[in-house]
Amino acid sequence: MDKVPATKSAKQTSSKEKSNKEKFREISVAEFFAKNKELAGFANPTRALYQTVRELVENSLDATDTHLILPEIVIRIVNRPELSGSNGSEQRFTVIVEDNGIGVPPTVMANAFGRVLFSSKYVIRQTRGMYGLGVKAAVLYGQATAGQPLKVVSATKGSSYSYMKELFIDMKKNEPRIVSEGQWRRRGSWHGTRVAITLMGDWRRAKNRILEYIKRTAIIAPYAEIIFETPDGEIYYFPRLTRKLPRPPREAKPHPHGIDLEHFKIIIKESKAKTLLELLVQEFQSVGEKTARAFLKKIGVNPNLNPKKLLRKENEELLRSIVDEMKKFEGFKPPRSDYLSPLGEDLIKLGLKRLFEPEWVEAVTRPPRAFEGNPFIVEIGMAYGGKIPPMNEPLLLRYANKIPLLYEEKEDISWKVLSSINWKLYLINFPAPLVVLVHIASTKVPYKGVGKESISEIPELEQEIKNGIQEVARRLRAYISRKMKEAETLRRITTLAKYIPEIARSLAILSKPPEKWSLPSPDEEKLIMDKMAELIATRVPTARGSDGKTQTIKAIRSIVESARTE
Amino acid sequence: MDKVPATKSAKQTSSKEKSNKEKFREISVAEFFAKNKELAGFANPTRALYQTVRELVENSLDATDTHLILPEIVIRIVNRPELSGSNGSEQRFTVIVEDNGIGVPPTVMANAFGRVLFSSKYVIRQTRGMYGLGVKAAVLYGQATAGQPLKVVSATKGSSYSYMKELFIDMKKNEPRIVSEGQWRRRGSWHGTRVAITLMGDWRRAKNRILEYIKRTAIIAPYAEIIFETPDGEIYYFPRLTRKLPRPPREAKPHPHGIDLEHFKIIIKESKAKTLLELLVQEFQSVGEKTARAFLKKIGVNPNLNPKKLLRKENEELLRSIVDEMKKFEGFKPPRSDYLSPLGEDLIKLGLKRLFEPEWVEAVTRPPRAFEGNPFIVEIGMAYGGKIPPMNEPLLLRYANKIPLLYEEKEDISWKVLSSINWKLYLINFPAPLVVLVHIASTKVPYKGVGKESISEIPELEQEIKNGIQEVARRLRAYISRKMKEAETLRRITTLAKYIPEIARSLAILSKPPEKWSLPSPDEEKLIMDKMAELIATRVPTARGSDGKTQTIKAIRSIVESARTE
Repeated sequence: MDKVPATKSAKQTSSKEKSNKEKFREISVAEFFAKNKELAGFANPTRALYQTVRELVENSLDATDTHLILPEIVIRIVNRPELSGSNGSEQRFTVIVEDNGIGVPPTVMANAFGRVLFSSKYVIRQTRGMYGLGVKAAVLYGQATAGQPLKVVSATKGSSYSYMKELFIDMKKNEPRIVSEGQWRRRGSWHGTRVAITLMGDWRRAKNRILEYIKRTAIIAPYAEIIFETPDGEIYYFPRLTRKLPRPPREAKPHPHGIDLEHFKIIIKESKAKTLLELLVQEFQSVGEKTARAFLKKIGVNPNLNPKKLLRKENEELLRSIVDEMKKFEGFKPPRSDYLSPLGEDLIKLGLKRLFEPEWVEAVTRPPRAFEGNPFIVEIGMAYGGKIPPMNEPLLLRYANKIPLLYEEKEDISWKVLSSINWKLYLINFPAPLVVLVHIASTKVPYKGVGKESISEIPELEQEIKNGIQEVARRLRAYISRKMKEAETLRRITTLAKYIPEIARSLAILSKPPEKWSLPSPDEEKLIMDKMAELIATRVPTARGSDGKTQTIKAIRSIVESARTE
Repeated sequence: MDKVPATKSAKQTSSKEKSNKEKFREISVAEFFAKNKELAGFANPTRALYQTVRELVENSLDATDTHLILPEIVIRIVNRPELSGSNGSEQRFTVIVEDNGIGVPPTVMANAFGRVLFSSKYVIRQTRGMYGLGVKAAVLYGQATAGQPLKVVSATKGSSYSYMKELFIDMKKNEPRIVSEGQWRRRGSWHGTRVAITLMGDWRRAKNRILEYIKRTAIIAPYAEIIFETPDGEIYYFPRLTRKLPRPPREAKPHPHGIDLEHFKIIIKESKAKTLLELLVQEFQSVGEKTARAFLKKIGVNPNLNPKKLLRKENEELLRSIVDEMKKFEGFKPPRSDYLSPLGEDLIKLGLKRLFEPEWVEAVTRPPRAFEGNPFIVEIGMAYGGKIPPMNEPLLLRYANKIPLLYEEKEDISWKVLSSINWKLYLINFPAPLVVLVHIASTKVPYKGVGKESISEIPELEQEIKNGIQEVARRLRAYISRKMKEAETLRRITTLAKYIPEIARSLAILSKPPEKWSLPSPDEEKLIMDKMAELIATRVPTARGSDGKTQTIKAIRSIVESARTE
């Protein structure tokens, strides 16, 4: 090794740098997403309009139901011809979403809307937003295509004032550039947030997706009131169907199975724990003192070790082996799923009934499971028949942390599972009127991209979705099987009933001694026929309970009647 | 509006902030990708090992062929049992990739490998890397799962020294933390870069994908020499098949069709142009003075306007309308495609031949097109028959800017187009032995995610892929049609040839005057038969040229022979 003074080499290389012509530079994360709009779902004016609605609605829901507020959300898309091209080809719209949520404190308002990767979502909690990116990507898209600032008005619960800011994102610096602001005494008791973003959009093409998105949001949040006003002046109103809110999600500590070296080092650095034992108990979920002791004993590490010592170079191997063992140790309780917020079977059934008016609907909330230390719950809803039109494959409704996913269905884990199901086992032959809803609730939804449209193939997730679909499908099979038996029975009864008048008459005659044989009176005959109809009806399996029995008797009687008068 | 002093409101809200419990904070872009590893393709140890190889190989190719250097790339994956779990379940590997490229200047080395979004790829140029993210994501994954630093050695072309650095990425600050460094006099004339990253991996599961990746890279870069040493000690050697390099890509200015408001504002700010006319000519590609004048005249804007004035608030509307019109004006020449670097038909055919040994191979480089100001070229290769096994659908090989894409095939634009083709029109009935290669070269590849696995559905791109596939498929149809005719003809000949001995004998007899009628001698008979075989052969269409004719004659003779001896 032939060392040279650093200064000399630096000089030498600076001339080389020019000759190889590669220009290195750093860009801000705002510039990154401004230049690669498609990564966050803003590939074109159609997707951009859809994505903007989505991101704002999801923020509104996070600001309401997560905090036990019954959501009231007003969505408006307003045409802005004065900002549009002369021949109307480059159309601009303002998307306005107002909610009655907890509001954004004025001290963080500018950053929350004007700084990429500034967010309240960087904790372990089930939220719709995950990346701290969506609304800012919409702002970046808006300022690049319409040149207008974002406008936000917000009042936190209990504050005496409402605050307003208009801002751009300084793309090079990734920071908000405020163009106007104000504050005023709050009107009435309103709290919440109202955001307006102006952007180039293609309403004509985006319309169906946006409507579908809002509809599917209403299915899964029947406790919300949603009003949507389109640029054409149409108003869609989704009334609240229930005041029952799902239990809100709670913030959790990391689970030892989900830890990596880097994360563990940060925990050690930031913790006040004096011993490794304390560290495990204080900084992790699902680790009690007893479990922590058992774990440390198993791997032969002193519980009283000062955790800061693990950061030393000579303890590198020990640290790595502790993390390796933590990820495998089966003595820890599973991740806390009681911090998750599933929808519950009732809400799912309610939503499916409202939208599809099916003849049969069922739902299941599966028991919690975990992948890499992240707890998750899979929920499956299924609707069949009624007003659902027969389709060549099941209609799949995908949800993750209570948001509908519309794009990129074919690459989603739920689609993969759904298409592996052999529906014939469940007595379904396509075309069939079948809707399947899959909801995944987790502190970490493993999306494939920041646009949040499809979910990666995590084996644990796949298994649970499969279990859930099979569970509900078995109930559907039972229902269909009953229906089929009923139909079969009805066929038999029809055959049988035709002979009832004949048999009834014979019975009426035979039930008397031979010397009294004579044609029965019509009353007599009717009595016997009714008895027989009832007798048959009690032997018939029915899917409709006691009401079904009455109907069966009625059906038999009408068959008998027509046979008699033939 | 009821204004209050700012200080008072700030106090007020800080107490509210606590009560609503939302903890806002900013994270660095390094922390973002460390926490959302799956976004960059590092979802699990299998994908991570594959992705690490990919990112390093792609950097190596960008450092060589882009600069007219014939690539020599050595890839090694080394098992690291000493860093692995006691029972070997948590395996660590070191991925080492060495190239003979232009090298990384020592002044930027630390940032190039240790700072997310620091890169030389943020220019308008066709490169494999695009995001300035891949290798850094590998480093982040490596330090989180194996706790080891990245190690890089590099010497730029012509430098007297080699430089070495070992570093981690400080996740919180997004900056390199150097743990050791050195420099020494360069050995021989070597220049290039050697990078080693240690990470948790699953070689058993990743093996096939990694091999496939390297194989497909070799198909499309037959001018490269690639050596791959596996952890099992196997060595795969892909020799150089040609010294012909594709023309290198060049850096371009932005095209007016690809501009947005934000981008235009930055250009105005940074340009030294004194007039709007100058600005258009100097800062954009495909805009000459004449075109610029025509454009400004059409939209009625003074060419001598000082562009800086456009940044004023009162000119907001003017600025927006200029950008709107720029995107639509058809007088600009199309984006410069001569700055792109397609593979060329020869290289594609060479690659397909090497890998599949087909009976037929063709390729086409389509004329350049553009989307949103980005020029692109689509190239299609097709191979048929030979050693390709019959499959139920075509085998699709996807490439973008000369890198193979292996995952997420079903959501890729190329798959969408391919599955829309009606192959029966091209005389192909599946199962069939058909391979289709699609290569997209562009200054901007619209990937769906930063993991660079699938490409978005851009209409212009879709149309070109379709045109290309149809063009080559028509040639394939011509070939198959010839083959089918040949087969049909052979069938006819077979029928015909059976009668040749009979006819030949008759002819031999009849060609003499009746008084000389007698059985011909065997020589006479043979002569006539040969003549007839030749006669038939000249009438037969053949796919194999003059060689085909000889073979046809031979075939007829053998049929005749067997008919004669029957």
